[in-house]
Amino acid sequence: MKIIGEKINGTRKRVKQAISEKDAGFIENLAKQQVAAGSSWLDLNAGTHPEDEPGDMIWLVETVQAVVDIPLCLDSANPRALSAAIKATAKTPMINSINGEKERLEGILPLVAEYNCEVIALAMGGVLIPETCEGRLEEVHNILEATRRAGIPDNRIYIDPLVMTISTNIKSAVIFFDTLKAVRQAYPEVHFTAGLSNISFGLPVRSYINRTFLILAMQAGLESAICDPLDKELKAAILTTELLLGKDPYCMNFTQSYREGILDMVKNNGGKNAE
Amino acid sequence: MKIIGEKINGTRKRVKQAISEKDAGFIENLAKQQVAAGSSWLDLNAGTHPEDEPGDMIWLVETVQAVVDIPLCLDSANPRALSAAIKATAKTPMINSINGEKERLEGILPLVAEYNCEVIALAMGGVLIPETCEGRLEEVHNILEATRRAGIPDNRIYIDPLVMTISTNIKSAVIFFDTLKAVRQAYPEVHFTAGLSNISFGLPVRSYINRTFLILAMQAGLESAICDPLDKELKAAILTTELLLGKDPYCMNFTQSYREGILDMVKNNGGKNAE
Repeated sequence: MKIIGEKINGTRKRVKQAISEKDAGFIENLAKQQVAAGSSWLDLNAGTHPEDEPGDMIWLVETVQAVVDIPLCLDSANPRALSAAIKATAKTPMINSINGEKERLEGILPLVAEYNCEVIALAMGGVLIPETCEGRLEEVHNILEATRRAGIPDNRIYIDPLVMTISTNIKSAVIFFDTLKAVRQAYPEVHFTAGLSNISFGLPVRSYINRTFLILAMQAGLESAICDPLDKELKAAILTTELLLGKDPYCMNFTQSYREGILDMVKNNGGKNAE
Repeated sequence: MKIIGEKINGTRKRVKQAISEKDAGFIENLAKQQVAAGSSWLDLNAGTHPEDEPGDMIWLVETVQAVVDIPLCLDSANPRALSAAIKATAKTPMINSINGEKERLEGILPLVAEYNCEVIALAMGGVLIPETCEGRLEEVHNILEATRRAGIPDNRIYIDPLVMTISTNIKSAVIFFDTLKAVRQAYPEVHFTAGLSNISFGLPVRSYINRTFLILAMQAGLESAICDPLDKELKAAILTTELLLGKDPYCMNFTQSYREGILDMVKNNGGKNAE
């Protein structure tokens, strides 16, 4: 399970302020913390006006690269901002995101192809998210037809099956799992990613629902997620699920993480069933 | 997800003492608590010498039935104790358990057939638990051949795919899931159950591993478990997994349980991702 660290996002108030004040220390700190917590990519979202976005994205890339050396995930729908940011990256970045919308594909795919980027593709058209697994698979067919035409190998693509709110459709998680499995069947080479938190919108104990959803999604084949790597309970869920899915030989990662205190938050009640 | 309440078990020191002293109050209390917490059956295990077991099982049945009215799960390998206990039950009980061992089948299946009991069948022969999914399926074939010959309908049978320790075989959980799915494929009418706690033997935060395993097992198709219904964290995991698997229309059970405080134990960090 790979984590795309989500915390440098200009739609968050404190990050927005840091970007507008060019507060490098604040951004550097977020970058270092997320890398130390095991992120495989850092998402960068400037969240600013289109005219400012290219400059702000370059500033974010350069600020973050000054202190960490993992690849970045450039989070924008603006080809101009993406193009500027890609040129500033030291390592081949991931692009977040495309969908089936024609203009977005035409604006972004040439960049993905030219720089051999990885790219997140949302299983939707331009505006509406299809309610059904079949509808989403149809959108993925459209997108993959376009990426293949642009010469982008399937294994550079991270499909996001899209997490909708379970409080408005009780089948939301099941549709996510089914979509993931149907896409995997049709395109064995693509990868998968997702944001988690939509699932629990409008319900109590949201973080707990999100974690349980992640456990189930990993069993369905989810390989990465856009999430908060500093969330220790989420980390515990990932470690334990990898253990149970047989992906942690000799339980090494699990027991090592326990010794490092990463499982401390789930320790309460921990020995109960040992009786 | 149905729970077979596990707490009245004579291999537990305090229960053993209550049985030997015929301390009805202690047993009654365990029975009432487990029913209030939502058990669908109460497991009764006298854990005593073969000569005492029939009498002790009858005492347990009568003691428990005096205060609760859910069906019982008679936990014994001793046909004489089972026969005595079955006759004392007010509702058709479940028998825990048979396996592929010839003498056990010959001793217990006539009782299951005569009284139309439900019965737990372990996916193993007399002594060894097969390491592989194929080996366990083979044992299930043997058992189902015998139960069908005895006139027991498949839908009275609860297959236990058997949970082994993940610290000695990293594939233990995967073998469990695969066995469950293979048996489901071969016998669409049977049900499934399992004990959980073996999975985490020898590892830290055992209860947390057990809960995560239950979440994954429910997605694989597990319908019931022999566990502690008073474990609120386990309860929270079940409620949330049923929600996410689309089995809780209008999130009614989940939100109701939240209002009743059943999700309090997972509340910490609960609003985190709502930011």
